[in-house]
Amino acid sequence: MSVLIVGSVGLDDIATPTQSRNDLLGGSASYAAAAASFFAKAQMVGIVGEDFPQAHIDFLKSRGVDLEGLQIVSGGKTFHWSGEYFGDMNTRETRSIALNVFETFRPELPESYRDADIVLLANIAPDLQHLVLDQVKSPRFVIADTMDLWISTARERLVALLARVDMLILNDGEARQLTDETNLVLAGRRILAMGPRFVAIKKGEHGCLLMSRDGKFFACPAFPLANLADPTGAGDTFAGAAAGALAAGAGEVAFSDLRRAIVRGSVLASFDVEAFSLERLKSLDDKQIAERLEAFRELVRFE
Amino acid sequence: MSVLIVGSVGLDDIATPTQSRNDLLGGSASYAAAAASFFAKAQMVGIVGEDFPQAHIDFLKSRGVDLEGLQIVSGGKTFHWSGEYFGDMNTRETRSIALNVFETFRPELPESYRDADIVLLANIAPDLQHLVLDQVKSPRFVIADTMDLWISTARERLVALLARVDMLILNDGEARQLTDETNLVLAGRRILAMGPRFVAIKKGEHGCLLMSRDGKFFACPAFPLANLADPTGAGDTFAGAAAGALAAGAGEVAFSDLRRAIVRGSVLASFDVEAFSLERLKSLDDKQIAERLEAFRELVRFE
Repeated sequence: MSVLIVGSVGLDDIATPTQSRNDLLGGSASYAAAAASFFAKAQMVGIVGEDFPQAHIDFLKSRGVDLEGLQIVSGGKTFHWSGEYFGDMNTRETRSIALNVFETFRPELPESYRDADIVLLANIAPDLQHLVLDQVKSPRFVIADTMDLWISTARERLVALLARVDMLILNDGEARQLTDETNLVLAGRRILAMGPRFVAIKKGEHGCLLMSRDGKFFACPAFPLANLADPTGAGDTFAGAAAGALAAGAGEVAFSDLRRAIVRGSVLASFDVEAFSLERLKSLDDKQIAERLEAFRELVRFE
Repeated sequence: MSVLIVGSVGLDDIATPTQSRNDLLGGSASYAAAAASFFAKAQMVGIVGEDFPQAHIDFLKSRGVDLEGLQIVSGGKTFHWSGEYFGDMNTRETRSIALNVFETFRPELPESYRDADIVLLANIAPDLQHLVLDQVKSPRFVIADTMDLWISTARERLVALLARVDMLILNDGEARQLTDETNLVLAGRRILAMGPRFVAIKKGEHGCLLMSRDGKFFACPAFPLANLADPTGAGDTFAGAAAGALAAGAGEVAFSDLRRAIVRGSVLASFDVEAFSLERLKSLDDKQIAERLEAFRELVRFE
């Protein structure tokens, strides 16, 4: 089945303590769609300018991503983000953001997208996430991602969105910000009380805690990595792969399906950070994914 | 089989945002021995003053802890720690420490302790940990715990100790402090290069990462808890229960034994923090442990 993904598509300039690279493929929808494509057919909704390199389009197409929903604005410039990572890559600073064509983005779903099975509202403004939900017919499962910016600037619209989605994905700091609870279990419960049946709280190198409204928990570790090349997009990759894994299934999404999906999200995210931008996903194949899934099982098993 | 535990025994005054309690049973050896006693016979080495309440001794005896190695100094005063927790209990401040009889502590092992099967050098000065190792015959497995204080004030003696132990337990901040590596996998590898075959890096609410010199990993989550009454002794409880679980086995300690042990450490630690001091361990029974172990399996399983 298919997974519909809406989010940002952009060009990133990224500096780490060891390397600087410009005009890389970036944006929440790019990472999420590429990651999802390893498990299901991904349909992407986004906007770019005329300057968007054909190589980036070719890569997404090579992953089988449906780009009918990608608006290309003639004469327009693509969303551009520039950021720098410090030390152990746990600190990031945004150097500049140029919204460009993204400023006027109004997601419009091609007819063929409206029957989407799984919907991933990747990280964009809650208003745009609402707009997408208005256009889909009866998706089997809707996931929303978000960020600190929307919690502080569009809280009301975000909270309204929560009543319309099945699962919210956010990181631990954002969960605390949204709920004013420092304890993650209490924060998760508050979020579940706002509407979604499930919440996945990402904890970076510490993995992810999945909670359900009926009291179930799943603790998924992050794959231990000695070398991190570029953490950009790890969260989007996680969400995209999880959505893709769900789209590979059928019927009502059970907690066990979410466990499976989240492990696949963690596996794809662990590959993503091994190289700049989406480069590691370019050389990734199903055998490597299967091997890391096996290493993941080994990582957590006990008698 | 038996587990020999050496560490501090003391009286704690603990203040949390909601409660203050004085003269509670405390010290690394107290927590560790009580936790170990759920899985094996614990032999304790420590020192207290004449003021040490009989009730605390009675509790340890009720857990079957062998106290032949507990020195009681007539006229002496027991080690006393006073501390306060803030906010979500992730911040702790020491108000006062009175070493008292602990200042002259020189661990002496009763003859019956020298054949110990598993040795846990709970958190005390590395010099004292060395002294204990000098007195045991041929333990099957030796675990050392430590803390930031010894890394900064007794680094050389601590590093010398690492060549004599099978496993080091420490928290993530301490691992970074000891190795000058921010990445935990790299920090773990550096510690393994110092001598121990295994290192368990505790990450508080994020669980624990176990690494072996031959490249194996085990990621153990912490049990998700909505309410933390008092985090004091969680690490000591973790180490004690893990050591006790190992003592319940036989033969060479394999990585799979350590997986089992560390899960039991996490389970006992999750109980410990539910009440002040060791109080939750007083009412704990095997059935409750088995139930939480089952919940733990549920917490991490996936297909």
